[in-house]
Amino acid sequence: MSALGIDYGGTHTKLLLVDDGGAVLARETVPTGTLAELGGAAGRFIDASPTPVRSFAVTVAGTLDPSNGVVGRSANLPWLNGVAPAELLSEQLAMPGVAVQDGEAGAIAEARFGAGRGSGDVFVIVLGTGIAGAHVLKGSVHRGAHGGAGEIGHVPVADNGVRCSCGQRGCLETAIGGQQLGLRWSERGAERQDSNARDVVEAADAGDEAAVAVLDDAARALGRAILNVSAVVDPALIVVGGGVARSPEWTVEPAVAHARTEATFHVLPEVKLASLGVWAGARGAAAVAADVLARAGAAVNRG
Amino acid sequence: MSALGIDYGGTHTKLLLVDDGGAVLARETVPTGTLAELGGAAGRFIDASPTPVRSFAVTVAGTLDPSNGVVGRSANLPWLNGVAPAELLSEQLAMPGVAVQDGEAGAIAEARFGAGRGSGDVFVIVLGTGIAGAHVLKGSVHRGAHGGAGEIGHVPVADNGVRCSCGQRGCLETAIGGQQLGLRWSERGAERQDSNARDVVEAADAGDEAAVAVLDDAARALGRAILNVSAVVDPALIVVGGGVARSPEWTVEPAVAHARTEATFHVLPEVKLASLGVWAGARGAAAVAADVLARAGAAVNRG
Repeated sequence: MSALGIDYGGTHTKLLLVDDGGAVLARETVPTGTLAELGGAAGRFIDASPTPVRSFAVTVAGTLDPSNGVVGRSANLPWLNGVAPAELLSEQLAMPGVAVQDGEAGAIAEARFGAGRGSGDVFVIVLGTGIAGAHVLKGSVHRGAHGGAGEIGHVPVADNGVRCSCGQRGCLETAIGGQQLGLRWSERGAERQDSNARDVVEAADAGDEAAVAVLDDAARALGRAILNVSAVVDPALIVVGGGVARSPEWTVEPAVAHARTEATFHVLPEVKLASLGVWAGARGAAAVAADVLARAGAAVNRG
Repeated sequence: MSALGIDYGGTHTKLLLVDDGGAVLARETVPTGTLAELGGAAGRFIDASPTPVRSFAVTVAGTLDPSNGVVGRSANLPWLNGVAPAELLSEQLAMPGVAVQDGEAGAIAEARFGAGRGSGDVFVIVLGTGIAGAHVLKGSVHRGAHGGAGEIGHVPVADNGVRCSCGQRGCLETAIGGQQLGLRWSERGAERQDSNARDVVEAADAGDEAAVAVLDDAARALGRAILNVSAVVDPALIVVGGGVARSPEWTVEPAVAHARTEATFHVLPEVKLASLGVWAGARGAAAVAADVLARAGAAVNRG
């Protein structure tokens, strides 16, 4: 038996099959289409599976009501707004399935199979355009009472005074979010006005002082966020991933050094880089799909 | 059957007995003495109990190694340093018992029997000389991987730039800790140099502008701490207690107003005042004592 993880991305969709033990059996990337097109592609992928597929989970890049699986708002896949994608796919694929928020899926995968493997108490921080955070306890995300836990990107830790998209000032995202790095560089006099994190890192590598200063501010803010998580949640391990973490020498490594310098009473957790890369979402979704089946089996057994 | 909670305070010790349902059967306050004296007082209290007492828990005001019950450092009861008080009392009283950190006991009581009753997901903040925080999930404190979770008093949220006893700057404690309020008032020109939270509140009530400004800074910092807890932990409810919260019109109420003003994406939890007062520690210890018995019973039942 196997379970299917679907990472329904903005341009490409990843399909990944795991067996009962969580080992990856097959994977495929297809262009992203409508929900009906996704159902068709998933059906073909399932037909080619060496073992019977019993359940699936599909990621949603956007807000999701966990009580009914309905998408609130997806910026990249607007046709999902107000729709319960797992319900529709479930009919088409004739098997049980659930939707899972994409950041949550990636965090589950990193915590269970990636850099967090073996720990059971992992806080995952993803540094992308936005900053995602999730506390994965015993393999499940602690969502909080209103689904809002882990929002470390919107805790004020930067001295920059910059107004964040969320309305507060000095949030972690204003200092280290992908686009925000480019904006901070522009404010410090960079010639290009539309640069991204990679541009800033390349400039810093080439000795651009403004870019170095921007990345130093970013690392300092991330270091404070690590202290904050340590003081409030005290996880055994922090795992940092996302595009901005791909240059750890400019981001994660100096952030950990800042955190060590500023730490006082804190017992700082180990900080590791995420290890699963772009397949984390699909891997996490497949794990969630397997959980669905395990819970259904347990319910039958209890029945 | 009943369970005994002992709140071993700096000057007075509270003894409290609960039945299987958690209802309070008896309570008594005795002067604090040595551990042997405490054992004597507890023995007499137990002898007077209407029902057999099966277990106890004793609070420790200080650091405690949960793995062996040994006190690291207790500022007020230095004879406990390096000692396992529950082990010694257990011999004297001839029943099983455990030690519990005093803040943890109070938080458990407020979450289970006080203002948090019925919620199951409560973050408790105690505003005293120091600031204690504890996330009580389903009646138990989430201690974190290194026993450090909930340290909201040492998250920088104040703009005052004041160096905290912990070594960081602008921690919540520097803005709203009992003695710190007096210090901030002195820095703003108060004549008295040894004032406490009550003095500052009385001065503010009488229209002292410096005292009003100090309390406004304190409330703003507490509001940010509430936002921080909301973003990272997202509890269903926040309960605020401690001496400084006894003047909620100057502290908790304006803090909630500040948090509402500054909140953006946050779903703010309800914020309530603690309701158990000075008996919270003993009540929580009694609940922990009852848990010890329930676990021991379950172990026996499991055979």
